[in-house]
Amino acid sequence: MSNPLRFSANINTFNACADRYVLSGYGERLTTDQLIEAATQVPDLTGVELVGMWHVDDGNVAQIGRQVRDAGLEVTCVTPDIWASGKWGWGSFAANDPTIRRAAIQEVKKSMEWARQLNCEVVDLWFGQDGYDYPFQADYLAAWDRLIAGTIECAEHVPEVKLVLEYKPKEPRTHCFIATVGKTLLLVEKVNRPNVGAMVDIGHALMAYENVAESAALLQYFGNKLFYMHFNDNWRLWDDDMTVGSVHTIEMLELLYWLDRVGYAGWYALDIFPYRENGVRAASESIKWIQGLHGLLDKIGRARIAQVIASGDAMDASAMIREALLG
Amino acid sequence: MSNPLRFSANINTFNACADRYVLSGYGERLTTDQLIEAATQVPDLTGVELVGMWHVDDGNVAQIGRQVRDAGLEVTCVTPDIWASGKWGWGSFAANDPTIRRAAIQEVKKSMEWARQLNCEVVDLWFGQDGYDYPFQADYLAAWDRLIAGTIECAEHVPEVKLVLEYKPKEPRTHCFIATVGKTLLLVEKVNRPNVGAMVDIGHALMAYENVAESAALLQYFGNKLFYMHFNDNWRLWDDDMTVGSVHTIEMLELLYWLDRVGYAGWYALDIFPYRENGVRAASESIKWIQGLHGLLDKIGRARIAQVIASGDAMDASAMIREALLG
Amino acid sequence: MSNPLRFSANINTFNACADRYVLSGYGERLTTDQLIEAATQVPDLTGVELVGMWHVDDGNVAQIGRQVRDAGLEVTCVTPDIWASGKWGWGSFAANDPTIRRAAIQEVKKSMEWARQLNCEVVDLWFGQDGYDYPFQADYLAAWDRLIAGTIECAEHVPEVKLVLEYKPKEPRTHCFIATVGKTLLLVEKVNRPNVGAMVDIGHALMAYENVAESAALLQYFGNKLFYMHFNDNWRLWDDDMTVGSVHTIEMLELLYWLDRVGYAGWYALDIFPYRENGVRAASESIKWIQGLHGLLDKIGRARIAQVIASGDAMDASAMIREALLG
Amino acid sequence: MSNPLRFSANINTFNACADRYVLSGYGERLTTDQLIEAATQVPDLTGVELVGMWHVDDGNVAQIGRQVRDAGLEVTCVTPDIWASGKWGWGSFAANDPTIRRAAIQEVKKSMEWARQLNCEVVDLWFGQDGYDYPFQADYLAAWDRLIAGTIECAEHVPEVKLVLEYKPKEPRTHCFIATVGKTLLLVEKVNRPNVGAMVDIGHALMAYENVAESAALLQYFGNKLFYMHFNDNWRLWDDDMTVGSVHTIEMLELLYWLDRVGYAGWYALDIFPYRENGVRAASESIKWIQGLHGLLDKIGRARIAQVIASGDAMDASAMIREALLG
Repeated sequence: MSNPLRFSANINTFNACADRYVLSGYGERLTTDQLIEAATQVPDLTGVELVGMWHVDDGNVAQIGRQVRDAGLEVTCVTPDIWASGKWGWGSFAANDPTIRRAAIQEVKKSMEWARQLNCEVVDLWFGQDGYDYPFQADYLAAWDRLIAGTIECAEHVPEVKLVLEYKPKEPRTHCFIATVGKTLLLVEKVNRPNVGAMVDIGHALMAYENVAESAALLQYFGNKLFYMHFNDNWRLWDDDMTVGSVHTIEMLELLYWLDRVGYAGWYALDIFPYRENGVRAASESIKWIQGLHGLLDKIGRARIAQVIASGDAMDASAMIREALLG
Repeated sequence: MSNPLRFSANINTFNACADRYVLSGYGERLTTDQLIEAATQVPDLTGVELVGMWHVDDGNVAQIGRQVRDAGLEVTCVTPDIWASGKWGWGSFAANDPTIRRAAIQEVKKSMEWARQLNCEVVDLWFGQDGYDYPFQADYLAAWDRLIAGTIECAEHVPEVKLVLEYKPKEPRTHCFIATVGKTLLLVEKVNRPNVGAMVDIGHALMAYENVAESAALLQYFGNKLFYMHFNDNWRLWDDDMTVGSVHTIEMLELLYWLDRVGYAGWYALDIFPYRENGVRAASESIKWIQGLHGLLDKIGRARIAQVIASGDAMDASAMIREALLG
Repeated sequence: MSNPLRFSANINTFNACADRYVLSGYGERLTTDQLIEAATQVPDLTGVELVGMWHVDDGNVAQIGRQVRDAGLEVTCVTPDIWASGKWGWGSFAANDPTIRRAAIQEVKKSMEWARQLNCEVVDLWFGQDGYDYPFQADYLAAWDRLIAGTIECAEHVPEVKLVLEYKPKEPRTHCFIATVGKTLLLVEKVNRPNVGAMVDIGHALMAYENVAESAALLQYFGNKLFYMHFNDNWRLWDDDMTVGSVHTIEMLELLYWLDRVGYAGWYALDIFPYRENGVRAASESIKWIQGLHGLLDKIGRARIAQVIASGDAMDASAMIREALLG
Repeated sequence: MSNPLRFSANINTFNACADRYVLSGYGERLTTDQLIEAATQVPDLTGVELVGMWHVDDGNVAQIGRQVRDAGLEVTCVTPDIWASGKWGWGSFAANDPTIRRAAIQEVKKSMEWARQLNCEVVDLWFGQDGYDYPFQADYLAAWDRLIAGTIECAEHVPEVKLVLEYKPKEPRTHCFIATVGKTLLLVEKVNRPNVGAMVDIGHALMAYENVAESAALLQYFGNKLFYMHFNDNWRLWDDDMTVGSVHTIEMLELLYWLDRVGYAGWYALDIFPYRENGVRAASESIKWIQGLHGLLDKIGRARIAQVIASGDAMDASAMIREALLG
């Protein structure tokens, strides 16, 4: 029998989601107070992610920590905003402009400090704007130099907080530098600090034609560097940020199996964009899917699964899953 | 309660599958006798597809018909070979060379005659080689003229046999002319003969970023033109021809629902390439997945599903499927 | 020698572009006056597209017409906004809510009336929100009924204005109903009104694994229904809305050839999102690429191109293009 | 002015190519003698790749070396066949069966010995069959253990021959372990032997949504590990193995620029499958495209290109390329 899973969600899950056509969002904009209140309505949700400067800053960090705690929640991740305003449009850590690079590093350091004050282990380092859109637009070597140097500087700033790299092949740039699990691990190895690791965001991995179970396993294989997990689903070609379980049933099941097998003990955090759905329902559904699929693993039995994998027999695997799902 | 489904399989399912690297195939090559014998070992399989000139020809049609019948099977489809030798490499019905076009039409006519003799309703018209590989290589307008004319000529040759167009975006050409459900229906409408319709091959539709349920529904919407179905699965970007249920659980469930809803009463035929798997097991697994998922629809209840669809509520849909699959 | 091409651009080309991360946009927001002024700075640009209710309404239609004319421009297209606010989130013509359907039809009718007053031939009918995001969320048959009926109603409202369907596989929905050139032509044929046709938006076609030249040719093949063209480029998997010529050189060349060959005489309109680029430069670059590639066709010679295509010889095609581009 | 490029081609380029439908191939099968003779007909081709056991073995290595030399060619790469018969179907270095693993390692060692005897620097290590097709079929950790150990064993066997890893996301497996440039570099770093590096096969990189220029630069960034290059082109989603220059003009140009900039001095080897084209013409066209594009870099000027890249200005880049290509 496996340990109970700990669930978190980006607090923006409960806010109106916008896209490039409907900039004002599909639903109602809520205050941070309302977002925290919404989070408490999701069964089995015990954590929330906050975004630096959106929900937490130097002025409110103590108060927000109290508020989250009073709501029965923990802060599981602080995400510095180094991607959501025009000034980051040409990059953050890898920007050509040294002032921007400096500012981005400062944002991350501040988020790390807030994380420490909030007893939060994880800061999410997503280099979404670090990449390029057009051919002949980027100096790939300079970009890696800068990404490595900036990450080291931050890692040393607050060693007791984990910096968690979040890779993604594209969006908002047509090409992001830290695009795949392989490139992420290369960066982790060059940075070579104990508090620097990575997460798998399921949708980002699917976009990269990765098998999410394999990606999670690799991050553990290379030095136990799987520090966090972002759950969602998509149609495999774009970061649709759908609720868990909506499309990829079996790959999700395989991921959950491998997370246990490689000893992942971190949060199961939702990173969904319920554009047209109610955030509380979308988060609740996602958690129930994860719980249901996770329970199925116990029903099948870990030993049997291990045996089927060791055999490499795809039809045994098919029968095992079919019987578990369809009886 | 829905009607029992009728299952068929391409008889090559049971033969060694080859790819462009392992040209001699991953398994053992069998004779037609052995292929038929293999088919009888698959529970609930009552039909087989034959390929013209490979398994059936003028000389053996009566005997092969008897042999299939004696094995307790029906021939559900005859597929003319207009794609598996070098001479078809530059096209069949749409080839620039009129001799090749003529030869291809003859192949189809012969298959239609054999189908009639075998009491088989369906001839599969797959224009796999009709397309192009490079830019500036094809005259798109001439191609459509030829595809329309050739299909009409065949349709009129044996009006009581159904010609079933099988679309596919690519492979063996990098671009096939009859690539999507939309283009297929355009061809069906121009041809405008009662015995010309189409199938959905699930893998081909997935490659085209189609939702298979929607594609099947559309073929019925435009004149009840869904004459046949090819079942398999893939990773969405290529025609991997995997066993049913291996990757896309929920889309398969939605497809099965819509097949019933739009009154599809044809065969549930497997078109898989079990390269490294035993063919009998691969076919058996596929059928069990279809049966299991189809049974789930009854368990949920068609009325409830219809209600959820009418509401357009994605979270109701998610919960409905989750409860059915995971209890 | 071919006729000179007429260039237009969506007037939003010159405004700050936003995405779902940078909702306030990467640049500066401009007024409609400033947008028109910007358009006049683009060499050889003689047309603009306006969006209904954003740039034109009942109150300003006469004045905006005068203003555009005084700037030396024509209005080439009015696009009704039936996709850019939360109320359209669950669809426009195909929405389940009849009030929304009615409202969407009204928006289109109004845009048609404004187009007529502006001497503008074309209204762009983009059903971006008509689709679905999740499995079991859509009634495909009802959707087509509604799309057909609504389009007919609009077509008859102002018969002298052309309704131009703009297809796209996805975004903002994960699946749009009118997704491909094939589905678009099916809708055009069912609607069956002389003033209803379609455009190819290059990026949308690339996303659908279409060859843009082939798609344009097909729209002409089936009743001369290519009424308009949207130019842009992308990395083939998403609607990146990049400047023309940035990625796909040879496919663009083939498209320009076929546009002439099938007698397309409409506007060459830009639909780009220069998120991080100056709009005037981005539009100017795009036009220069089109002009340069179009000039190359004359240099090669249309007769030679026709001959190469007729031969189907890919290496002749390669050599022809190579010599033209690289000397 | 840059150095002259050295061109090679897989000798199978000149043979009939087959795919899974046309197993006997689209053209004529040639003997090794005829293949070498064909290679001499390609202008500026001075190298050939051989496949172990197909073209070279213990019995003929001295004679084949002489024959290639007499034809005025060099052997640039020996590729061990660890993927082209059914016995490798479940993997080579990573197979579950230790006998197969042993046999695969032996094949590679033999190819390394032949390479040494042929004065050939490079052995191509393509783990095409090492991967999986279905969920729950692979033990990802065991696979990496085996790939690392086997590669080290081979590297130490003939230290003066370079082992060059060739990554590919899929085919013949639906998922290959060594799928991307990032995973390849992780393997290179773990193996940590001076004679182990990697190549970029352009088509494989495109399939992985990599920018080939970036991938080549990264292999140099992490220890000058770009040992070889495979040239071809495709439509970005599958390994179509088309001739160079057929689809992706600008990305190819950017790649050629970066190869010079990061000091790549190895062979420019063709790896194309001219299924329906004459091999000599296909190779000749590919080389002419590379030469033409490479010459364009000199025409633009390396300093100007470096300046544009340093600026990160996509519209400057667009104008620079446009003027070079279209005058």
